[in-house]
Amino acid sequence: MNVIFRGHPQPFRTVTFDAAKNSVQLIEQRLLPHEFKIVGTKDYRETARAITDMVVRGAGAIGATAAYGLAQGVLAFRGTDLKKFAGHVQAVYQTLADARPTAVDPVNAMNGVLREMTRGETVVEQQSIALAAAEEFANEDVQHCAEIGRHGAKLIRNGMNVLTHCNAGWLAFVDIGTATAPMYAAQAQGKRFHVFCDETRPRSQGATLTAWELAQQKIPHHVIADNAAGHLMQRGEIDLVIVGSDRVLGRTGEVANKIGTYTKAVLAARHKIPFYVAIPHSTIDWNLKRGFDIPIEERHEHEVLGAWGSLQSPTGPAKTHKRAYVRVANPGSPARNPGFDVTPAELITGIITPAGIFKPKELWARRHKLGFQSA
Amino acid sequence: MNVIFRGHPQPFRTVTFDAAKNSVQLIEQRLLPHEFKIVGTKDYRETARAITDMVVRGAGAIGATAAYGLAQGVLAFRGTDLKKFAGHVQAVYQTLADARPTAVDPVNAMNGVLREMTRGETVVEQQSIALAAAEEFANEDVQHCAEIGRHGAKLIRNGMNVLTHCNAGWLAFVDIGTATAPMYAAQAQGKRFHVFCDETRPRSQGATLTAWELAQQKIPHHVIADNAAGHLMQRGEIDLVIVGSDRVLGRTGEVANKIGTYTKAVLAARHKIPFYVAIPHSTIDWNLKRGFDIPIEERHEHEVLGAWGSLQSPTGPAKTHKRAYVRVANPGSPARNPGFDVTPAELITGIITPAGIFKPKELWARRHKLGFQSA
Repeated sequence: MNVIFRGHPQPFRTVTFDAAKNSVQLIEQRLLPHEFKIVGTKDYRETARAITDMVVRGAGAIGATAAYGLAQGVLAFRGTDLKKFAGHVQAVYQTLADARPTAVDPVNAMNGVLREMTRGETVVEQQSIALAAAEEFANEDVQHCAEIGRHGAKLIRNGMNVLTHCNAGWLAFVDIGTATAPMYAAQAQGKRFHVFCDETRPRSQGATLTAWELAQQKIPHHVIADNAAGHLMQRGEIDLVIVGSDRVLGRTGEVANKIGTYTKAVLAARHKIPFYVAIPHSTIDWNLKRGFDIPIEERHEHEVLGAWGSLQSPTGPAKTHKRAYVRVANPGSPARNPGFDVTPAELITGIITPAGIFKPKELWARRHKLGFQSA
Repeated sequence: MNVIFRGHPQPFRTVTFDAAKNSVQLIEQRLLPHEFKIVGTKDYRETARAITDMVVRGAGAIGATAAYGLAQGVLAFRGTDLKKFAGHVQAVYQTLADARPTAVDPVNAMNGVLREMTRGETVVEQQSIALAAAEEFANEDVQHCAEIGRHGAKLIRNGMNVLTHCNAGWLAFVDIGTATAPMYAAQAQGKRFHVFCDETRPRSQGATLTAWELAQQKIPHHVIADNAAGHLMQRGEIDLVIVGSDRVLGRTGEVANKIGTYTKAVLAARHKIPFYVAIPHSTIDWNLKRGFDIPIEERHEHEVLGAWGSLQSPTGPAKTHKRAYVRVANPGSPARNPGFDVTPAELITGIITPAGIFKPKELWARRHKLGFQSA
């Protein structure tokens, strides 16, 4: 991949397309927060690899990357033979779909592009439609997040302390993010508030990505250990919780999200602190009937047994960007590493969607507003 | 400090005294779990420094270290002049008391030694009494932990999964530990069970010290992220929680312990999982009237912003014991780092003490059994 930009971050989208170079442009998220770099893929295979290797992660962001990757592959076709073209499109689609096999977003995004392409009668027409459809997918992701921000900003009042867990920020989408969208919108309205970022062990997306985003946006924040939220709630230092989600069950209102979300919801309920979940329509699963049936990925134990970071002295400034892994835990002790947990509807104050804020149990009744498509 | 032993750990006490060398012998806890080493201090000043620098940590362990350190200083006195001797004893006492100014254990332990010493009429007699009193303090610590084990072992049944937080193991005491005592006693009775060790960010004493202890004792265990306990409880994978404490209020039954303990107690109550706190008598504060008034130490933010460990590849074996710090969080983002939290009595099933297991609200009525001394 080519390095497109290196240095101080500007208000870039997480995923964009350079039509002149036929290249998908991505923020290299594995280097954050220690280095900001935008890379460009030279072909769809490299785009698929960027998804697999987690150069880009987050529901909306990998959806847009796959849509652009499909257009990139489609545009690389030379010739006018529609049958050969169809075979090529199928190969591109499969390569990108295989990049992260358990994720639904890339497949949903590419299916949308393919549906649009059927309107074209020639290779050139279909190529041009593919790019336009990918652009539209990305723009819709941004628009949905902006709507989430518009609705959610009402929840944030001056002087509030807001807690968030993991990263459902603009790095996880094309722009703005979901859990962060109400914060950015409230900031734009001139409201002043402060955010606590849960570290979010074992992968620490809160301490790395969310803290980095908030620093870019100049929103006052502190990182806290995942252990600290209960104490802060007990002392009245948290007024509102907003998180994202990997899957919300439209039939029950249950929310699957990064491990530790359930714990924060239990604590918030005990302390009568409002607990909100911000999601685009695409995160709602209209089929599954029980949260217990959501598969919980058990990830590699090395995530729990150690930590990645930038090598330096504890109190001094970073002298290098040298990334390193340290084994923290006792060598030889094994770890369990469930990646997600499920929060029941009763603990959730509301679901912030592009169509408005709903009680979790209301989703099914509002399904036609929320992008429901019968199977 | 001299290195006394390096290599595979045997069943050593955490703190012992070598009378021939007039030296306090300590397990160098800062190197664990990556290296096992016993060091000997050459004089009481070095012993005080070992407390300050956290070569040794944990309530019972620093109490015994201070008691031995006092004897060590006392024994180094040459002469028969009782007045000069008294001045020397006072200087030794003050140096050791200043080593960790907020801890009560070193002071309580040394006061006991001083009380005994008044029985001696000559310098030599007092020196000999000081050593015997320090030995007695250490032995009593071991005996109290053994009694905690005897009472607490009844709570552990075959096949159980036990959760513990932080390290209240034998490394925190002279031997056996408090939260771990019921586990070691149950194991000695032939019971089979499994332990989940909370990582316990930010200092990770669960992943390092508790996991190391359990590995030494061959008790099956897994390390988990602090975020994971809620999910495991939800899935029925945790049957019992046992933790230690830094201070239990005798008048209210409230428990101050490592940050994150409160969160686990809230989760356990929701899932109707018994939650026990194991403590020696010396941990009970009979004076304070409200848990809210327990001072909560705010520690340095670099603990939250990064992690200490042994430098290596994520999945490969450790090639070196090179200790390193990595900055995990976004450079420039600040952190909050409360070190402790307070759990209310209503969330605690029982307090396991050397005198038996009591409801937290029963402590005051049982105070005369529990070492209460009126002020």
